Amino acid sequence: MAARHGALTVGIDFGTLSGRAVVVRVADGVELGTAVHAYRHGVLTERLPTDDRRLPPDWALQVPRDYVEVLQHAVPSALAAAGVEAADVVGVATDFTACTMLPVTGDGTPLCELADFVDRPHAYVKLWKHHAAQPHADRINSLAAKRNESWLPRYGGLISSEWEFAKALQLFDEDREVYDAMRYWVEAADWIVWQLCGNYVRNACTAGYKGIRQDGAYPSRSYLAELDPDFADFVTAKLERPIGGLGDIAGRLTSEAAAWTGLPEGIAVAVGNVDAHVTAPAAQAVEAGQLVAIMGTSTCHVMSSDVVREVPGMCGVVADGIVPGLWGYEAGQSGVGDIFAWFVDTCVPPDYVARAEAEGRSVHDLLAELAAAQPVGAHGLLALDWHSGNRSPLVDHELSGLLLGQTLATRPEDTYRALVESTAYGARSIVTAFRAAGVPVTEFVATGGLAASDFVMQIYADVLRMPLSVLDSGQGPALGSAIFAAVAAGQYEDIAAAAVAMGRRRTRAWEPDDAAADRYDVLYAEYTALVDHFGRTDDGVMHRLRRLRRDAWAAADGAAS
Amino acid sequence: MAARHGALTVGIDFGTLSGRAVVVRVADGVELGTAVHAYRHGVLTERLPTDDRRLPPDWALQVPRDYVEVLQHAVPSALAAAGVEAADVVGVATDFTACTMLPVTGDGTPLCELADFVDRPHAYVKLWKHHAAQPHADRINSLAAKRNESWLPRYGGLISSEWEFAKALQLFDEDREVYDAMRYWVEAADWIVWQLCGNYVRNACTAGYKGIRQDGAYPSRSYLAELDPDFADFVTAKLERPIGGLGDIAGRLTSEAAAWTGLPEGIAVAVGNVDAHVTAPAAQAVEAGQLVAIMGTSTCHVMSSDVVREVPGMCGVVADGIVPGLWGYEAGQSGVGDIFAWFVDTCVPPDYVARAEAEGRSVHDLLAELAAAQPVGAHGLLALDWHSGNRSPLVDHELSGLLLGQTLATRPEDTYRALVESTAYGARSIVTAFRAAGVPVTEFVATGGLAASDFVMQIYADVLRMPLSVLDSGQGPALGSAIFAAVAAGQYEDIAAAAVAMGRRRTRAWEPDDAAADRYDVLYAEYTALVDHFGRTDDGVMHRLRRLRRDAWAAADGAAS
Repeated sequence: MAARHGALTVGIDFGTLSGRAVVVRVADGVELGTAVHAYRHGVLTERLPTDDRRLPPDWALQVPRDYVEVLQHAVPSALAAAGVEAADVVGVATDFTACTMLPVTGDGTPLCELADFVDRPHAYVKLWKHHAAQPHADRINSLAAKRNESWLPRYGGLISSEWEFAKALQLFDEDREVYDAMRYWVEAADWIVWQLCGNYVRNACTAGYKGIRQDGAYPSRSYLAELDPDFADFVTAKLERPIGGLGDIAGRLTSEAAAWTGLPEGIAVAVGNVDAHVTAPAAQAVEAGQLVAIMGTSTCHVMSSDVVREVPGMCGVVADGIVPGLWGYEAGQSGVGDIFAWFVDTCVPPDYVARAEAEGRSVHDLLAELAAAQPVGAHGLLALDWHSGNRSPLVDHELSGLLLGQTLATRPEDTYRALVESTAYGARSIVTAFRAAGVPVTEFVATGGLAASDFVMQIYADVLRMPLSVLDSGQGPALGSAIFAAVAAGQYEDIAAAAVAMGRRRTRAWEPDDAAADRYDVLYAEYTALVDHFGRTDDGVMHRLRRLRRDAWAAADGAAS
Repeated sequence: MAARHGALTVGIDFGTLSGRAVVVRVADGVELGTAVHAYRHGVLTERLPTDDRRLPPDWALQVPRDYVEVLQHAVPSALAAAGVEAADVVGVATDFTACTMLPVTGDGTPLCELADFVDRPHAYVKLWKHHAAQPHADRINSLAAKRNESWLPRYGGLISSEWEFAKALQLFDEDREVYDAMRYWVEAADWIVWQLCGNYVRNACTAGYKGIRQDGAYPSRSYLAELDPDFADFVTAKLERPIGGLGDIAGRLTSEAAAWTGLPEGIAVAVGNVDAHVTAPAAQAVEAGQLVAIMGTSTCHVMSSDVVREVPGMCGVVADGIVPGLWGYEAGQSGVGDIFAWFVDTCVPPDYVARAEAEGRSVHDLLAELAAAQPVGAHGLLALDWHSGNRSPLVDHELSGLLLGQTLATRPEDTYRALVESTAYGARSIVTAFRAAGVPVTEFVATGGLAASDFVMQIYADVLRMPLSVLDSGQGPALGSAIFAAVAAGQYEDIAAAAVAMGRRRTRAWEPDDAAADRYDVLYAEYTALVDHFGRTDDGVMHRLRRLRRDAWAAADGAAS
């Protein structure tokens, strides 16, 4: 017989490779059961499932039916794992990668599911990391800068190639038939909600951060016409829909979706949301000034504030973007955990790898232990964390990594520590940018995989000279979605109240050490001097080297052909 | 029965860990036989052979009797390997590491062989890489700068802690009994000649480069008195001796030395010399403007010229310093092959090491092959070759390495290539410094272990935009000594004539590729900009990081004790 826990909600987190469902007790947020379902087609970067022709470079597509399979498999499995009565579930909510877009008909059917378009790459989902629209983003940015469009500063002066307009313009340019056949250009975050409740509601979060919706309006018809006369009605014909606030109800679970999931028909379905942003209430960090860092391969920072400022190099500031009533800020570090992984995979010699294996632990753990034994500054190294460019505050993806101070005595653990420290300096530069622009940062809340590393967290606490709070859950986004589901179901008055009851934040999980922080102040000053020299110069050496690199390969390809 | 080849000479090269003898045909320089003998005591860095107390850090001592054993073992073995009649040998010459110093009595007995001093570290040979005299070098330099001593600019403005005066001042300060008991403070290069012929002649090369002998004089009595009143007579009481020109005869082989070596008593013994400098005639590079690079763990550059100029950052310029009648210049790169070795040992992952092993070759060869396949500039990296500091042209051992341009796609072969290129840029900066000071460089002659690498040599040719010549011998210094022996024995009129007959240089062994050189011009400009930013600033970031490093360790040691 199933245990009874009172009201329950289900949160579903759609990631890059899989979806995860979690069943949560509304009263206190306890996670009762969870299940993961991998996408059947994963990420399409080579070819379509239906077609043997190769996709061009930098493409990244998905198959929308894979998302529905998560509803069909992960949700029933999570219910079973929780050992609860499905009848106790009062609401469901989702979060998604963003900006992830698909073209659909008026009833929400993906164009890639129509026989006419099944072999057309542009008919599929363009995943967030589809990076083939850079020329289109460049056109969008240069025209916006020329016209002094008021929305541009809200995005640190640059619209990303990952976002709604750039991906749409690529579709418009490269496959007009698909563009013309599509009724809606939809965020996957909203499409999955549409599948659950039958209503298409655009969520305020992605509409603002990814869809350039500012102060209630999108980029103007005259701006779009100047991009291309035939693109003038893009907003009105393909994009515009009613906006749903975060935590609002989008509709009620349809009988079809109830059959897929095993959840009760008619329960509340929340407005869609983004994986990073839903993590804030999971970490009880929805007040102004609580900065949540979701630290994994890259780091996303989200923070609400009661002031709106143009902070240099932010990804965006959006009204009601994280919780209603506050301005939501987003910033990011484009490389963090993936830099450490790259180092471990390609820069660590056999004796270290063999030792870690013999001791039954990861190379990361071995390097962290060796590096943690050093006093601050003892390795004599300084690094710039730009191996994937710099998202905030420089918004420059042509930058690259730097390591300074090597001697013949430099050991792998020294460099590993310097790389971890460089990402902490990067985080400090973002906190500093907020504060310098007049946006207070009162607390740093760490979440995501790296928050489990004492080594990494202590360095961040020391470098930031702030105590770090931590989200005590391995599935922050899914828990966050379950909180939004509870609000949508009317179980709590608002997100703040739900976050207090259902979220979990351990405050002062790591305390800064004063002596270490003093020494890191000195090193951070050295870091910012390098940032100024290499990152704030027009067309600096890193840009020139990257150009030379492209030219060298192009010349070699030309010579070979 | 032994083959007859006409007149023969023997060259003996005293290295850091062993001595090598080679038997050479005077007519054409053909190497007929060679043998190596390792020093019984190697390098003493931990303790004396006679005493269990630890030596302080940075000490490096040797035992003089080990050098005599080379005479006793390597020379007879080389004769046997050559299969020649010892009676055909007409001369012998030696070259030595420098500056390598020992204290002796008036008859040349090392103080460490006297019962009174056998357990006194200061009574032993101080090897070139004994680095414990830096405070004494600092005193020498600051006083010389204050007094505007005319000899200081001849050494790039800095006397090294490795050289005769710094090591002597340490001995004077730390063991006055040994200092007072010593009659002569002798270069090992001259001491070994003394053992062979019974005469103590100071060679012009080390007297100039390491002994601060300029324009016929050493540092003045008043200067020495200002260092310390009791040190005022150091030159007159301990150092001064007749100077022997390079290629001159120092004396004739004694019966004792004939018994050790198996060589005929009474043959010519040449004036002592230095390993790098004797390589020049071996490579037929004794004309003005022929720069010889001895490329191993570090690179030493020697070049003669008919002009004397103050070239910034040279190790020294000495009249008759390489061959009589010309000014001899010496420059150096403090880290070259040891940087590549450090990278291979500590920065290359297991899959590369396993692949090299499976293919039966070195990791260096594998990385070189992979890196050679890239077009110039394709890795997008730029490095500074300062892992061991910069000897020329910056004379700054507090500098450190830098690597710029890493991305998550950077592979080990990319970094390996960037490091090799950085040392080629370093070589170009030395050639450029000579030319800018008005000292022509007409040819670049590569010798030493790295000259065997096609990969390294092609990069040097392209970066320098010069054809490279190469010394076609694996034992350049020993061959060079054999050439000096032939001159001392009167077989040739002068070193130039002997070099033509006995040396061997393959000209244009590597030709620069114009397209690669064009791209390297661009990269070299980026390198020099980094040099200016990081290497030519007073107390720059590398100095500050190194200080922080020392402070961090000192604070940790203090806390631990």
